[in-house]
Amino acid sequence: MSTYEDMLEISEQLRNIQRALYLLAWDERTHMPEGAIEGRSESKAELSQLYHKKLTSEKTKKVIDELNKESAQADMDEVQKAAVREMTRDFERRYKIPDELIKEMSKVSTKAQSAWEKAREKSDFELFLPHLEKQVELKKEVAEYIGYENEPYDAHVDEYEPGFTAEKIERIFKPMKKNLSSIATEIFAKELEPGEDVFEGKKFDVEKQKKFCEWLAGELGYDYKHGRLDDAVHPFTMGMDDDVRITNRYSEENLNSLFSLTHETGHALYEQGLPSDWYGHPLGQRISMGYHESQSRMWENFVGRSKEFIDYLFPELRDEFSSLEENTAEGFYKRINRVKPTFIRVEADEVTYNLHIALRFDLELGLFRDEIEPEETKTVWENKMDEYLDIVPEDPAEGVLQDIHWSAGQFGYFPSYALGNLYAAQIYDTLEGEIDGLRDQIVQGNFDELKNWLRENIHQHGRKHKAAEMTKRLTGEGLDARYHIDYLEDKYGPIYEI
Amino acid sequence: MSTYEDMLEISEQLRNIQRALYLLAWDERTHMPEGAIEGRSESKAELSQLYHKKLTSEKTKKVIDELNKESAQADMDEVQKAAVREMTRDFERRYKIPDELIKEMSKVSTKAQSAWEKAREKSDFELFLPHLEKQVELKKEVAEYIGYENEPYDAHVDEYEPGFTAEKIERIFKPMKKNLSSIATEIFAKELEPGEDVFEGKKFDVEKQKKFCEWLAGELGYDYKHGRLDDAVHPFTMGMDDDVRITNRYSEENLNSLFSLTHETGHALYEQGLPSDWYGHPLGQRISMGYHESQSRMWENFVGRSKEFIDYLFPELRDEFSSLEENTAEGFYKRINRVKPTFIRVEADEVTYNLHIALRFDLELGLFRDEIEPEETKTVWENKMDEYLDIVPEDPAEGVLQDIHWSAGQFGYFPSYALGNLYAAQIYDTLEGEIDGLRDQIVQGNFDELKNWLRENIHQHGRKHKAAEMTKRLTGEGLDARYHIDYLEDKYGPIYEI
Repeated sequence: MSTYEDMLEISEQLRNIQRALYLLAWDERTHMPEGAIEGRSESKAELSQLYHKKLTSEKTKKVIDELNKESAQADMDEVQKAAVREMTRDFERRYKIPDELIKEMSKVSTKAQSAWEKAREKSDFELFLPHLEKQVELKKEVAEYIGYENEPYDAHVDEYEPGFTAEKIERIFKPMKKNLSSIATEIFAKELEPGEDVFEGKKFDVEKQKKFCEWLAGELGYDYKHGRLDDAVHPFTMGMDDDVRITNRYSEENLNSLFSLTHETGHALYEQGLPSDWYGHPLGQRISMGYHESQSRMWENFVGRSKEFIDYLFPELRDEFSSLEENTAEGFYKRINRVKPTFIRVEADEVTYNLHIALRFDLELGLFRDEIEPEETKTVWENKMDEYLDIVPEDPAEGVLQDIHWSAGQFGYFPSYALGNLYAAQIYDTLEGEIDGLRDQIVQGNFDELKNWLRENIHQHGRKHKAAEMTKRLTGEGLDARYHIDYLEDKYGPIYEI
Repeated sequence: MSTYEDMLEISEQLRNIQRALYLLAWDERTHMPEGAIEGRSESKAELSQLYHKKLTSEKTKKVIDELNKESAQADMDEVQKAAVREMTRDFERRYKIPDELIKEMSKVSTKAQSAWEKAREKSDFELFLPHLEKQVELKKEVAEYIGYENEPYDAHVDEYEPGFTAEKIERIFKPMKKNLSSIATEIFAKELEPGEDVFEGKKFDVEKQKKFCEWLAGELGYDYKHGRLDDAVHPFTMGMDDDVRITNRYSEENLNSLFSLTHETGHALYEQGLPSDWYGHPLGQRISMGYHESQSRMWENFVGRSKEFIDYLFPELRDEFSSLEENTAEGFYKRINRVKPTFIRVEADEVTYNLHIALRFDLELGLFRDEIEPEETKTVWENKMDEYLDIVPEDPAEGVLQDIHWSAGQFGYFPSYALGNLYAAQIYDTLEGEIDGLRDQIVQGNFDELKNWLRENIHQHGRKHKAAEMTKRLTGEGLDARYHIDYLEDKYGPIYEI
């Protein structure tokens, strides 16, 4: 067996363990009985350790070192080089961190998440503060081990968005913030409530919603032979190669389930579009968190909340839910696209969403540049909410304590959500030019060409290309927030009579 | 850390991996999409190998060797000695077999099971024969590596029923067969069809059955905080310490689901009754397959198919299923206890069940004693069916091809099913003497005292005592089939007017 084949074998073994870990996590969030958490945690910790040991073993190191030699590289084709690049990246991000520190990170995260849950419940920032301090301190230490381009924060951005840096994000976010604020201000000034009362005072049978969502995911191209739809408190998608599962939540009060469904289906179509030859291969993965999010946001917003999609969907919805019988597609469309300042990120509309992210990025950067102390985050958060959205949360549970990420030590993750929206806008702009009559196809409920375009141009390439390269290949230029801005202006101008 | 603590740590690590493997298996049989089998198989193989490596590692060997030294044993209490005994047993059963042979067994089993499925579908014995030959050959080889008391078959019996040998089983089965045949002959001669037409021509809503079964398991003492009930084609129980899951199947045509439910609940109560301090401990497991089966058969038959239980359950059933409104508890009780010769073991009644097992034991023993060749199994099967039950399967799918066990290489497993029935009868005889008014409690739907008796006297001891020792402790004597015979005569005499 060649050294390259050794690497592929290690990669497959790692993926075999990871798939088991993913199933344990999926089960924990969908089916696991409440009393089973202890055994589950221990099994997850055991498999995580086996994964870590295999990835950072001396054997892996030898293989990686060998394959990175000039002489070895000389014989490789593009795919092989990319595979070695990504495997090396995964290896180094783990190998460079001392085992003791990894263990401490895991312990600190467990404690911090538990403290965060209590703190959020009681809306008591002080309960969480010591854990936030510890996490920031640890993550600064980790950054030094991993290494970075310009500044420690880059080491973490690179985990979720390989190739990105704080500086690059700042450059993109700065004009984006200004433009988003100005759109939001214009909209809020209108004091309009567009659309009809499609949900108010009505009930939507949850079992019917489930059946409808199950049907809808199939219509969008989700493959149930390699997946299933379950309930979860916080919807998520679990990609396990030939087994890609989506989850959704339902409320009797509204039909928001439709949009979490299209969101998760977008994630799932990415996972199901990865080439099956590359299951377990270093390249058989998504490019980045931002690229993953671009697919979910595209199906959720660019498709799912478009006029054309609602024209297609509304008659089906009205057939199913009699309480919509006096409503119109137009009224429904406008209603689901209302823009409002909200405290909570996950409830934010398309216009304000990236402002929520910009705020978090400002804070994380401040923490890592030692310009903000952890104890100041609550106040800075409130001031920034005032600045960006003209509202101030009275309650830390609706402010600095709302997200799980910091308690889990996931600094550098938030920007990917915003980048996802930007990628989606820029790519959608391109593909609308390439797919003849896309809007008509959507009105007809025909998503094949769109799905195939994404599959051929993005999904099938796994992570062979880095994000910046892929964006260039797809759209002919680097990432630019103006597509996002243009899209919002085009869409919300008519809705808000601007 | 002492060597003994090292052993406990290894045991816990093994259990952590095993729990993950069990979840993968549970999911595969309940929720997994059909297209996910390949990835699942690979993950299972990976974890199995990690398990095997850990169990047979040089570190484990060193710990085991050390703890088996006289000097080490001298300092141990009873529990510690038992823990070392069981851990040593698990270790040796794996360590003694060469890695190459283990790999071959796995490959042969995969092929044989796939061939068996096809062979059964086409009812073509010849398709399966070469795989049966291979399995017998391999298992004879394995027996030599593992070692045995008197003869090679003992090495395999010992896996499922530690401490048992072919000779011991023969001694128990011989009078059992004779007595069962004589009861069966008497019953068949009566040509009676006791009870009422409770199922014939009726439909029983499957959703209602599921709700009813969910309720019933809870009534019997099953703890949903540490478990859940799902559908499966072949019902099974998966015990994962603080997470013990049961499954069941339902037919619109009858209420057999009630008895598969009581059966699986019996298994689950054993698992849920294991001491939580011993999760991951070498002693934190069932005594043997036969003991496990004794618990399921006790709840299925001694409780579930008793007159008292039906007196308790029937009014509830009739409330739920209106098609039973003209039936009586008495008529229902007799109907579900009809005795008939059947080709298929899993459909057999209490009277004929152990004859199905005796037949398989005869065949396995013949194969391992070189008295029967694999190619003769079909004919010997037919002759024995004729001898024991006076029926001859025309179709190998209803004869020698009906069970999965041989394709999976599980020789030595079948006797445990019969032993389970014998243990159940003997233990139930004891506990009826110790629990005042047990029959009245069952009529009242009060199962607490029974559940607690089993928990305190059996479940809580894990596998501290071997089967023979436990039987002696519980009943004051060794295993004796006459309790099974007495029970059947007492029960079926009145039903068949004998």
